[in-house]
Amino acid sequence: MKWLALAGGVGGAKLALGLSKTLPPSQLTIVVNTGDDEVFHGLHVSPDVDTVMYTLAGLSNPETGWGITGETFQALGRLKEYGADAWFNLGDKDLATHIRRTDLLRQGCSLSEVTQSLRSALGVEHPIVPMSDDPVRTMLSTDIGELAMQTWFVKHRCEPAVSEIRFAGAEHAQPAPEFERALSESDALVFCPSNPFVSVAPILAVPGVRDAIEGFNGLRLAVSPIVGGQAIKGPAAKMMGELGIESSCVGVAKQYQGLCDVFVLDDVDGDRAGDIEALGMRAAVTNTMMITDADKVRLAEYICELAA
Amino acid sequence: MKWLALAGGVGGAKLALGLSKTLPPSQLTIVVNTGDDEVFHGLHVSPDVDTVMYTLAGLSNPETGWGITGETFQALGRLKEYGADAWFNLGDKDLATHIRRTDLLRQGCSLSEVTQSLRSALGVEHPIVPMSDDPVRTMLSTDIGELAMQTWFVKHRCEPAVSEIRFAGAEHAQPAPEFERALSESDALVFCPSNPFVSVAPILAVPGVRDAIEGFNGLRLAVSPIVGGQAIKGPAAKMMGELGIESSCVGVAKQYQGLCDVFVLDDVDGDRAGDIEALGMRAAVTNTMMITDADKVRLAEYICELAA
Repeated sequence: MKWLALAGGVGGAKLALGLSKTLPPSQLTIVVNTGDDEVFHGLHVSPDVDTVMYTLAGLSNPETGWGITGETFQALGRLKEYGADAWFNLGDKDLATHIRRTDLLRQGCSLSEVTQSLRSALGVEHPIVPMSDDPVRTMLSTDIGELAMQTWFVKHRCEPAVSEIRFAGAEHAQPAPEFERALSESDALVFCPSNPFVSVAPILAVPGVRDAIEGFNGLRLAVSPIVGGQAIKGPAAKMMGELGIESSCVGVAKQYQGLCDVFVLDDVDGDRAGDIEALGMRAAVTNTMMITDADKVRLAEYICELAA
Repeated sequence: MKWLALAGGVGGAKLALGLSKTLPPSQLTIVVNTGDDEVFHGLHVSPDVDTVMYTLAGLSNPETGWGITGETFQALGRLKEYGADAWFNLGDKDLATHIRRTDLLRQGCSLSEVTQSLRSALGVEHPIVPMSDDPVRTMLSTDIGELAMQTWFVKHRCEPAVSEIRFAGAEHAQPAPEFERALSESDALVFCPSNPFVSVAPILAVPGVRDAIEGFNGLRLAVSPIVGGQAIKGPAAKMMGELGIESSCVGVAKQYQGLCDVFVLDDVDGDRAGDIEALGMRAAVTNTMMITDADKVRLAEYICELAA
């Protein structure tokens, strides 16, 4: 049975890790948001792709949620001395990823090809696929003006209130070839517990993707990133409040109406199962907290059993 | 009295340091060879410019002769894992220089402007000027084919025998604006003890430079990089043998005929003073060895006194 997982951010990477420990590489394709991609110091950075890649490679820093464990920051310190705008933390090992990616892109490789080369070199056997090889940029309208995702998220620490989100360039983008293949060939699809507005929505904004998921030939599941009204990590709950959307698993589920058959919510939200079912989805209630790797595998196994 | 120093490589950087401790920034312009420049991993590396810059900033590694003291190599290790061709040693701090340079060049700055920005940020007050803002690449014909300078020097450890040297792109290059200004405004000019064939010759290959030095309106001096028939550092002596040129201070002096008024040679070569004078230059004999910073200042002071 072939699975397609859609992911972005730390929550997505956690479930992707669980799935990768549950399913062989031939049965799992992980498609990742690239709306957060940004050029820093002339280098192409793909934050969500790297978070998934480093997580599956066992390199990710569990304390920060970004970057590589045991990282050093010699180059960044010097870049600051040189007057570079260095608010985005880039460690020395992490920089190698961006240098190599930028160099391969410059040589004519697609982002998909680059990602495959990088993850293979790190020993990751499961396919990690950027949602598109074309540039799509998540732009947030805020009370201090329009900001690119990382500028809002890192430089402004998610503080400016968000009123609107657009995905610049999406209209000209195509799904990555391996994403298109997985959409047509997979037997099950899971929306990982990622921010629906800035991690999953950019993926859905790529032309053809929403239609393909609406007509998907298999079971479609989603896992709520909101538990007890709060985001496990990140600004999803704050953002939902600002966008006038109920900050709850039900508010998330509404984003997936028509795209999802089974909605997985946490035990603490069990009383909302009826509201989920009223949206036309089956509600599946379990412990969705992923603290340890065992938690991640347990949730992945639970999801696989739902589709079995 | 305004000085123009022409430099390349470690010997050039040593005398440039001595001169910078002897002359104020308003009285010294250091023009550096860029024929060794190379793109590694998509990043523009200027080895000779950086050696001079790091030396004047007090950052250079005296043990290796290249790079920064106390350097780490986290990024390079990861680049190797990614399958990059990583024979050129690039430390993490050093990488920041190349990342910043490449980013500023991409933004439209000239190599001169970039160099000024970098050296100023490192606290270097003396002007360091690339010989040209245009690409000139030193190419060596060898017994294993034509090699770019760094490929021959670092990757092949100077082993392939050199039969011919050309400076690709030189015909389309212009001297950097500050180099042109210094050529017309300086009262004295010194060829630092750099390799005449791969450090100084590329500078002379930039159209207009040789003519300007032939007609230079002031004293022109050169310091021999060959002492007792050996290069203090680097492949100059080996290269001279392969090119059929006498590997001695006299062989060096012949390269500067018509371009130099006073040739400084080491005490150990004092018996060759007559041969130097026969070439139409005044021979100045002194201790040219630059081990300590005091040695570098002493030689710089000696040179300044020759012109006084």
